[in-house]
Amino acid sequence: MAVAKKTIQLKPGGRVWINTGEGGLVGKGRIELLEKIEELGSIRQAALSMEMSYRHAWQLIDEMNQHAHMPLVISNRGGKGGGHATVTDKGKELIKLFNSFSNSFQKFIDKQSEKFKL
Amino acid sequence: MAVAKKTIQLKPGGRVWINTGEGGLVGKGRIELLEKIEELGSIRQAALSMEMSYRHAWQLIDEMNQHAHMPLVISNRGGKGGGHATVTDKGKELIKLFNSFSNSFQKFIDKQSEKFKL
Repeated sequence: MAVAKKTIQLKPGGRVWINTGEGGLVGKGRIELLEKIEELGSIRQAALSMEMSYRHAWQLIDEMNQHAHMPLVISNRGGKGGGHATVTDKGKELIKLFNSFSNSFQKFIDKQSEKFKL
Repeated sequence: MAVAKKTIQLKPGGRVWINTGEGGLVGKGRIELLEKIEELGSIRQAALSMEMSYRHAWQLIDEMNQHAHMPLVISNRGGKGGGHATVTDKGKELIKLFNSFSNSFQKFIDKQSEKFKL
């Protein structure tokens, strides 16, 4: 049959996250937020650069800190210069861990792709 | 500092799917539907067993067939015995491919878990 000879172009896909306990999930978006805070030293600037509201960024950070049961970001609201934020060592470790996990996942997907022809 | 000595219980997670072209995504749920149709020989029975409406099951199948540009399920509505459905060879290959992919992904996650302590 002609139909049976056709092949479908198949591509494996997926996404990964890190569960930090009690249902706390950290994925690509939250890690990017942490990275931006580390880079810019400010939650407000980080939020701006991601076209995210300050309020939303704050909520995400607050949730992450609570789920992790330790601060991943420490922030001084106000003060001279107007609120500086720092990613803690644990926060930096989480960024590193996620990026390594995410890279391994990409390699896994690339390897799977070779098998994908129907 | 006491805080720095705490460890978070981290767990890697994620999900995978197969892209069948033109934005068609087949994940765990659709594969389960195909498996149930193969097992029960009926879209209606498959939908019932998954607590899904017949209409919704039909839409999923129709979408999958269209995205794949070939039938994955062939269905005779009505007829004696009331509508028999068959998963085509291509459909069976897709089930097998997804399950193998999904198993490999689970192994990947299990292996990653060893690295996950913050």
